Amino acid sequence: MPDPGSPLGIFDSGVGGLTVFRRVAERLPGESIVYLGDTARVPYGTKSAETVVRYARACARLLIERDIKILVVACNTATAYALDVLRDELGIPVLGVIEPGARRAVAATRNGRIGVVGTVGTIASGAYQSVLTSLAPDMHVACKPCPLFVPLAEEGWVSGPVPRQIAETYLAGLLSEGIDTLLLGCTHYPLLREVIQEVAGPGVAIVDSAEATSEVVADILDGMGMCDAAHGLKQYHCLVTDSPAAFARVGQHFLGRDVGTVEWVDFQ
Amino acid sequence: MPDPGSPLGIFDSGVGGLTVFRRVAERLPGESIVYLGDTARVPYGTKSAETVVRYARACARLLIERDIKILVVACNTATAYALDVLRDELGIPVLGVIEPGARRAVAATRNGRIGVVGTVGTIASGAYQSVLTSLAPDMHVACKPCPLFVPLAEEGWVSGPVPRQIAETYLAGLLSEGIDTLLLGCTHYPLLREVIQEVAGPGVAIVDSAEATSEVVADILDGMGMCDAAHGLKQYHCLVTDSPAAFARVGQHFLGRDVGTVEWVDFQ
Repeated sequence: MPDPGSPLGIFDSGVGGLTVFRRVAERLPGESIVYLGDTARVPYGTKSAETVVRYARACARLLIERDIKILVVACNTATAYALDVLRDELGIPVLGVIEPGARRAVAATRNGRIGVVGTVGTIASGAYQSVLTSLAPDMHVACKPCPLFVPLAEEGWVSGPVPRQIAETYLAGLLSEGIDTLLLGCTHYPLLREVIQEVAGPGVAIVDSAEATSEVVADILDGMGMCDAAHGLKQYHCLVTDSPAAFARVGQHFLGRDVGTVEWVDFQ
Repeated sequence: MPDPGSPLGIFDSGVGGLTVFRRVAERLPGESIVYLGDTARVPYGTKSAETVVRYARACARLLIERDIKILVVACNTATAYALDVLRDELGIPVLGVIEPGARRAVAATRNGRIGVVGTVGTIASGAYQSVLTSLAPDMHVACKPCPLFVPLAEEGWVSGPVPRQIAETYLAGLLSEGIDTLLLGCTHYPLLREVIQEVAGPGVAIVDSAEATSEVVADILDGMGMCDAAHGLKQYHCLVTDSPAAFARVGQHFLGRDVGTVEWVDFQ
């Protein structure tokens, strides 16, 4: 049984998972967090299952060495391809972002028609489709990969005619299918939430997996009696496999504040 | 001295270098080519110098094992950061895409004002700026990173209002500086050549590094007497570090025809 005083571990292919970090830190302000961004291999969303599993295993191993008490796979693609493998292999609770987001979408829909947007890898994996269908077999699920959303978010190009037209192009098919709920199946997409909401219109509820995931993390820690009751020496620490400076610069937009100390690590 | 019957080696971070492969194959139709796309780690353009050098070394080693007679570094970022290291370490001619492109741009300009577009990594490296300045000290060089061009090219979203407005936004500053020559400093950008030319206007010459590089490859092989005189068993072979199927699908747009056999390889 891990020590309640141990930190939470979160990993993602890059900076995107900091939107999950942010929500978890808001929901659990007494907990220490170690975040790993595999920035030397980012993105995972365009890569194959085999490669993503290999990288996810390496990320998890590295965080286990940091003595974490729970692992959050904040990358949708890694969750889609590697969650089961990691659950089998690790001796601590492992949580992905797909099921929490899917549960919240099912709770939010009124007409039973849910749209999912994500990277090519996440959508191609079919993970959201199969979780949504297992939760609610009659649900109509429409999916659309949106490869330009990630570079737009990373550039900070999140308003104006270009993001708007790109969102219109990507969302047109989903909207024509009459969805009333849109699940943001990629950790970068919350940065484009405003333009996505504008294009989708007020009748569509936007569901952010990061927010939903932070609730489930809290539930698990509560349920296992693993919350850090001491509330003493809370620490945030970021690890990256590429340049710490670039991560700190882009990361602050995702975390909503300075990312603090960033340490370079490697696995080969 | 390598055997003239040996293949040429070309590597890139992914599919982009196939635009170089295409030009080299057109210019030297009798030569065999081995192409390596490091698709498990793509893109290099957003990564740090240290990481890019590490990956470039691994790519070069892998091609040397395939007994190549010349190495073309088809990735602008890898050329910027790793060309000197590879030249020092390998016993065969090593050629990048930056100097050939820069030479051609210097030859093309009438007013001495050259614009360069590329990835964040290539532009941040200062490589084009320093080569252009060493070739022609009085040259005015204006640079602009264009991160959205790569995902646009890979999506095949190369015409219409979205690519046009993105190109307008990226090129506005360069055009206001009065450039008459625009160097495409990324192997993906030739796919957007038409929209870039439209936005830049007829008074701006577009220079494609891939085309310029193929000329220099031919010159080196000629000069060293290393052309394959036999013209017998020409073979094209692609190696990738991620899914061969995805590479074959996207790659055909870059190569302008089927990519042929694709083999999965790895280095760790």
